[in-house]
Amino acid sequence: MKQRVRNIFNALDQPVDAILLKNGTEPFLDDNFFYITGLIHGLFEGSYAVLFSDGSIDLLTTALEAESAKKTEAALHVYTTKEDREGILKPLIGSLKIIGMNFSGLSHQDFTLLQQLCPSAHFVDVSKSFSSVRLIKDSEELNRIKTACNIADAAMEKIPEFIHEGLHEYELAAEINYLMQNHGAEKPSFDTISSFGKNSAEPHYSHGDATLKKHDFVLCDFGATYQRYASDITRTFVYGSANQKQKDMHETVLRAQNIAFDCIRPGVKATEIHQAVSMFIDSTSFKGCFTHSTGHSLGLAVHDGAGFNQSSDVILKENMVFTVEPGVYIPGFGGVRIEDDILITKNGMERLTKSSQELREI
Amino acid sequence: MKQRVRNIFNALDQPVDAILLKNGTEPFLDDNFFYITGLIHGLFEGSYAVLFSDGSIDLLTTALEAESAKKTEAALHVYTTKEDREGILKPLIGSLKIIGMNFSGLSHQDFTLLQQLCPSAHFVDVSKSFSSVRLIKDSEELNRIKTACNIADAAMEKIPEFIHEGLHEYELAAEINYLMQNHGAEKPSFDTISSFGKNSAEPHYSHGDATLKKHDFVLCDFGATYQRYASDITRTFVYGSANQKQKDMHETVLRAQNIAFDCIRPGVKATEIHQAVSMFIDSTSFKGCFTHSTGHSLGLAVHDGAGFNQSSDVILKENMVFTVEPGVYIPGFGGVRIEDDILITKNGMERLTKSSQELREI
Repeated sequence: MKQRVRNIFNALDQPVDAILLKNGTEPFLDDNFFYITGLIHGLFEGSYAVLFSDGSIDLLTTALEAESAKKTEAALHVYTTKEDREGILKPLIGSLKIIGMNFSGLSHQDFTLLQQLCPSAHFVDVSKSFSSVRLIKDSEELNRIKTACNIADAAMEKIPEFIHEGLHEYELAAEINYLMQNHGAEKPSFDTISSFGKNSAEPHYSHGDATLKKHDFVLCDFGATYQRYASDITRTFVYGSANQKQKDMHETVLRAQNIAFDCIRPGVKATEIHQAVSMFIDSTSFKGCFTHSTGHSLGLAVHDGAGFNQSSDVILKENMVFTVEPGVYIPGFGGVRIEDDILITKNGMERLTKSSQELREI
Repeated sequence: MKQRVRNIFNALDQPVDAILLKNGTEPFLDDNFFYITGLIHGLFEGSYAVLFSDGSIDLLTTALEAESAKKTEAALHVYTTKEDREGILKPLIGSLKIIGMNFSGLSHQDFTLLQQLCPSAHFVDVSKSFSSVRLIKDSEELNRIKTACNIADAAMEKIPEFIHEGLHEYELAAEINYLMQNHGAEKPSFDTISSFGKNSAEPHYSHGDATLKKHDFVLCDFGATYQRYASDITRTFVYGSANQKQKDMHETVLRAQNIAFDCIRPGVKATEIHQAVSMFIDSTSFKGCFTHSTGHSLGLAVHDGAGFNQSSDVILKENMVFTVEPGVYIPGFGGVRIEDDILITKNGMERLTKSSQELREI
């Protein structure tokens, strides 16, 4: 993990004497805390990490998590009271002049408390350094992401077995989550989307109590969390035989995804991928039906800091991991989305989710 | 929802001209945003609510969530760009002198951005007002919590059917989550705990790949989220026949829970409940084996702002909802915890989770 810390310091806009990360209480946990410690289990609520430019880490936690914390390379400090904790933090950071913090992962209340602890320090936001370094995955991260992708593929493979007339959306979501957990996922990486018929036209719809009818679209968008890392996959099936419009929608989206795949390689701008996909869909009879971005980076967070969209300033590099998820949505009729997770390689890309992309009529 | 907003203003330490809530992006969603809007579905990432002392609400959201937002009583403003949003916020709050914000649910980055929008305003922390008002549940909240409790009970009832030699902890966790979702839960309210044998001695252990052996403890701690509200229940079974030590542990914890139940009524201090439970356990042969607080308030959050612990300043009132969860933990041997959710009534309390509390040997 020392290399990760050094990378964060190397990516800073301005030098800092140390970086202080505070992990809040659920749901305000800071992914960066887990990124630099590599910790797999535990919440570490109210724990602190102090990072130095040589890659060393001082970790402050309570007795509750001390056993897990021993698995890290960090210098471990166990505190029981607020006074204890301040007694440990003071000699570590009390005399420093410039302290980096992750302003986007820290509550304003915690910021104020830390300011009181170091009244003479100047605090600077280092959130951009974390998000840019985290875009490039190391081998340990890639292994976890690949396992998360395999779990999602295994669940997707089984979905057709559960499809039947009258199935409720929430029942299919429960089956998907169950399949992923039984294949080793800690949990779903986000609320599983299982939408039938015209509900599939709403990209942010999760699942409700709609029942499946013949010729409905069945849109399934889900992912697994494995050792804190996420996968994210979408397939759109048809229950029964697909009509021509459904086939055209699916074919268009699949072609759009392949256009993205053909463009993705190191050196290309993230905006270009989105433009290529948008322009293609707008050149078909489904003009205006693609209403979201083409994808997002994936890692400890499902939305891990960058995206294939109009306003991105990211240039693709080797070992970045993104989703590629074009879609076509027709309100009142339905939607098709096909989403895969990809790794950017030296000369192009590799698809990490490997589920069949053909239109399946179940 | 107007009454909820008025209650927040009435509970303030100092008057404010308005309260501004910003809902962040996952995981930084602010429960208070959902408390005052009553919204059940959607994430409302990057949405804002401006609250006034007459109970009125102005809600700023994007087109993505506009349809859902229409279900509230709020004045709705739909924005597309940052400039749009600022153009709506400026006339609402730009000239105000004192603006309340939830410092504990807002990132420091967002605080800084809002400060720039209202450079002449003084911002004060209103988080305590929200947490104290939210402790007292209204009838709509109670209905949702009761349903969440019923779902957890229904899952607990089925657990013995899944118990068999060689079962993995993660498999049982998957079964529990599946049962809850099929009984109408949106999701588990926290990571389901399913710990076998000596793992049950670690209160914060979730689940791993340990397999079930004869005479193991089976500790199951989980809850359902229903319309955003949580339940939280624990039972400890024994696989096969329990030995005397296991029976003694279970009996002690059950007696400790009943001691708490006998003390709970309006007017009693939260600290007294914890003291009564701790003193009882420390008077048995399990002295020192109860290592956490006796319970926590429950609502939109699983840990909803108060607890039965040594440092609480809460005095119990009608319509508060708490967990009561004494435990006894013996490292290397195992642990027993029994947890129920209770509603404080006019003269005492009502148990909302109704699963059998007897020691079950499966």
